[in-house]
Order: sequence, then structure tokens, then C-alpha cells
Amino acid sequence: MHRLVSGTAQFQFMIDQMTEDLESYLKSRRERVDSVLRALLPASRTKPATIHEAMRYSMFRGGKRLRPILCLAAAEACGGELNLALPPAAALECIHTYSLIHDDLPCMDDDDLRRGNPTSHRKYGEGIAVLAGDALLTVAFEILAETLSTRRYELRDYVSELAVASGSRHLIGGQVLDLENEGQKKQVSTEMLKTIHQSKTAALLRSSCRLGAMTANAAPRKLSAVGDFGFDLGLAFQVIDDILDVTQSSGKLGKSSGKDQAAGKATYPALFGLKGARAEAGRLTERAHRALKPLGKKASKRLHEIADCLLDRNY
Amino acid sequence: MHRLVSGTAQFQFMIDQMTEDLESYLKSRRERVDSVLRALLPASRTKPATIHEAMRYSMFRGGKRLRPILCLAAAEACGGELNLALPPAAALECIHTYSLIHDDLPCMDDDDLRRGNPTSHRKYGEGIAVLAGDALLTVAFEILAETLSTRRYELRDYVSELAVASGSRHLIGGQVLDLENEGQKKQVSTEMLKTIHQSKTAALLRSSCRLGAMTANAAPRKLSAVGDFGFDLGLAFQVIDDILDVTQSSGKLGKSSGKDQAAGKATYPALFGLKGARAEAGRLTERAHRALKPLGKKASKRLHEIADCLLDRNY
Repeated sequence: MHRLVSGTAQFQFMIDQMTEDLESYLKSRRERVDSVLRALLPASRTKPATIHEAMRYSMFRGGKRLRPILCLAAAEACGGELNLALPPAAALECIHTYSLIHDDLPCMDDDDLRRGNPTSHRKYGEGIAVLAGDALLTVAFEILAETLSTRRYELRDYVSELAVASGSRHLIGGQVLDLENEGQKKQVSTEMLKTIHQSKTAALLRSSCRLGAMTANAAPRKLSAVGDFGFDLGLAFQVIDDILDVTQSSGKLGKSSGKDQAAGKATYPALFGLKGARAEAGRLTERAHRALKPLGKKASKRLHEIADCLLDRNY
Repeated sequence: MHRLVSGTAQFQFMIDQMTEDLESYLKSRRERVDSVLRALLPASRTKPATIHEAMRYSMFRGGKRLRPILCLAAAEACGGELNLALPPAAALECIHTYSLIHDDLPCMDDDDLRRGNPTSHRKYGEGIAVLAGDALLTVAFEILAETLSTRRYELRDYVSELAVASGSRHLIGGQVLDLENEGQKKQVSTEMLKTIHQSKTAALLRSSCRLGAMTANAAPRKLSAVGDFGFDLGLAFQVIDDILDVTQSSGKLGKSSGKDQAAGKATYPALFGLKGARAEAGRLTERAHRALKPLGKKASKRLHEIADCLLDRNY
């Protein structure tokens, strides 16, 4: 009887897997991550209330949750359990949101709109925006510390993975290069543009996939594979971001569009034209697909779907 | 022969301990921490160079290294090894330095001088200053991840201890309250002033001592004791800071003095007068001394000395 029940449950699970389309998959993963974030971020009324309101304001007004979804999907692709990947998934979104708050500051990109709402400093003032970013960066590691060790990976590996990807040599370093190259009279080289994209976006997307795979105790070959996938996907993602900045309205994007051009920023469309940029995004997505080979087709189905979906996105 | 040599070495060690005065003790611990920081922070020429220069600029121009020294001294007081406490000690200084960089920003306390030099944003501009702070906060956790587990404590405990003390409910929360109460027409209450001091200073000094004790595998009773010591010491430290802001020159302090008064900030001298503030600092230091009782007099000698030294400081 026991076997029958669990057999039926498993069969039902397989049906669910087959019929569940990508949209509902993404929605269900977003909801899981959001419910963890809602539970783990201090409540808005926790004193001092301003900072906790500001943290939640930036966290819970929109956002695709791409990094957490990649983390969860990579864990699942490596045969891991969704639940075990939730702490790094939530931590990744804290890092991403903090970086948006700080990048939007007047002393950086000076943006008024983010995820369809006034940016943190427009809503709470610059001081609180800086501190809300700091607090999300800090809580990311507090949340990450909840991740359980596997046979191959322990907390030290998770912390080091996230800290390096979001530190001065990658995420923060990319923003430094962006700042330094903005509005320069000299045309930014293709190489520099690639370095900026690698640092600002690709490195954290690589780590998103790797952290998920680590919670699944992935063998080194699979860990590398999902990491490479995430990296190429990150490059493609950023090229598409550049394209959308030119072709879409602010309302559609939920952030100010056309800003890159106005700021004289180096972008793929500026260097290669829209057609050239689209071709490059396609090439990078193809490379991402190929990277997944060691995982097998069936296991990596969702990751493939996510890559295609990001290539076709219009917001 | 082997026994004789090691016996002699131990005897020499005891002599060194007895004759080494506090000043040389502090100097040697500062040097140990600095050499770890020099080794673990990315080199100034690491690309992008600006951010790594800015991180090192704020880190290596002065600073008492109080938090790392407390961490090391607490480890030694609990019978631990100095070397094992170096990673959290270095991480604590990264957290402290990042918080100074961000607190000095124009949108916060707007300070020009820190540790006797131009503040980070005066030297590198606001954007880089924000990012240098972010990078030091991030690298703190990368460094902390090097801490070895003991029988009682593991990395999860260390990360959680540091993240909570430096997060939105303590260090960052204190800066929020400071911002919100600055220049208010209404006199700030004694209770609010205490809350600000607890959050901004005492919580991280408590964690400095606790992290050191944890690397020494301290029993819960001793861990609590050094934590209470650090907390009271932190409160005393902040009262003395308020006093020095009134009585000392900027040159002596290495930061702008008289700023609290000018900004209409709540301080102990403003609420209780200089004499009252000095008495309060003495009371808090006494309480810190008493907290150390469970450690025994001999083991906690250095911690007692540090407390007395901080009470008498004039910079």
C-alpha cells in the first residue's frame, strides 16, 4: 500500500513536470523565493522602521528574480532539492537588489525609476538609500549562512563563491569601470565593454547557477557546466538589456530607457548596431545551450527554456 | 632534551608575557592584523585599480584597530590561539572601515577628514567611495569564511554573529537613528542616545569579543562574559568619543572635531555636561571590568588593561 501510494505520487509528479509550462514554473519559483525573502527580511515595523521599510520597498516592487530562479533551476538540473537551494537563491536577490539601489544613486547612474517605481533615494533620500543597500548586502550573508553543507561543499565554499562574484573584482569592479568609462570622449573598446558585462552581470549569473548546483552536491564537471552556462547567459542577458534600452519605453522596462545613449555609455547597439547586437545575443545564447551538455537534455530542460525565454524577452 | 627545550621556551614565553607592557602588546597585535589585511585585500594594481587603491587608502591610513585587538585579546583570554582569531579580526576591521567611509559621505555626516586624511569621497569622489565601502563590506565576509570551526562553533555561527551586529538592527540601524535625529529641534532623549550608542558602537564591540572567544571554543558562560564586557566597553568608548569631540582638536583626533555640536547632534556632554559624561564613562568601564569575572583575573588581564586604556585616551 505504501509503495502504491508513493508510486502514484511520483507518477503525478512526473505528469506535473511534463505539463507545467515555463510560465507557471517561473511563477512558482518566484513565489517560493519571495516567501523566503518575506520571512527572512526583518518586518517593516522592526525598529528602526525606516530602514526595514526601505529594504522591503526595493525588494518587493517587481523584479524578475532571475538570479534566484537560475539558482533553483541549476539545483534541480543537478538532481538537488529545491528547498536546499532557497537560502542562496534569496541571498542572491538581496545582493542584486542592493546593487540596483546603489547603482541608481545620484553619484552613480542617477536614476529616478526602478522596477516601475521611484528609486530608493527618490523615495527615502540618499542617506537611507545608501544604508538600505548596505543592509541588503549584509543580510545576504546572514541568509546564505542558513545553507546546509553537502558532501562536497560547505558554507565556506558558498560564502566565498558569493563574496568573490559580488566583490571588487567582479560586480563592484564592473560598476567602477562603468563609472570610469561613462561620458568619456574616447569610444569605449569592444574589449572594455565585454569586461564590463562580464563583471557587472555574467559573474553573478555564473555564481547563481554554481550556488544552486553546489546545494545539489554537483560533481565538479557539472558545476563547471552550469557555471559556464550562467556566464554566457549573463553576457547574452546584458546585450539584450542594451538593446531593450534603445528599443523599449520606460513604462515597459520599469526603469528609465534611452539612458545609456544619453549618458554616452558604451553599449552593444552603439558599437555593432541593433542587428549586430541581436546576432551577438543569439550567438551567446547558443554557447550557453552548448555548455549544458554534461547535464543531459532531460535534466537541463528548464535551463534551456530559461535561456530561450531571456533571448526573446521584451522587458 | 626535547622537554628541556620546550620547557625553556615556555618559561621564556611567560617572562615575555609578564614584561611586555600594554603599548607593545597593542602594537604587536595591530601589526599582526595589518599584515593579514595587507595580504588578503586585493593588491592596489589589481584591476580595476581605482577601487582597490580606494579600499587600501581607507584601510591603511591610521586607525586604532580596536575591534581586531578586542577580538584577538578575547581569544587569548579564553585560552585560544592568536592565529585562529586573525580572520574574524581582519573581517571586523573591514566592516568598521566600510562604515566610516559611508558615514562620512555628503548624504550622511558629510565629513572631510578621517584618520588624519581626506575622506574617501574627498579623495576619489562619491561614486567610488560608495563602492569602496561596498567592497570592504563584501570582502569582510570573504575573509571571515577562512575562520576554522571549533568543537562548539562553526562558520555559520561566525557569519551570523557578524552579519547581525553589522546589519540593519545594529550598526546600520544606529546610523539610521543618527541620521533621523540629527538637527531635530526636539532634544533627543537619553534613552534614544543610549540606543544609538548601543547600535552604532556597542553591538560590534560585543561581537568583536564574542568572535574571538568563539575561535577559542569558549564555553557559553565565558562567551557571554566577554560579550557583556565588549558591549559595556563600547558604550563607554562612545561616551568618551563624544567628550573628545568637544575637548580635542581635529589634528589630535584625525577627524573633524566639534562637529557633533555644530550639527546639533545628541551627545553625552550635551545632555549631562562634561563632568557628568566623564562619570558615566567611568561607571560603564567599571561595569565592563566586572563582566570579566568568569574568565579569572590572570586570563583577562589584557582586556582589563585595554578597558582602562580606552577610558584614559585623549584621541
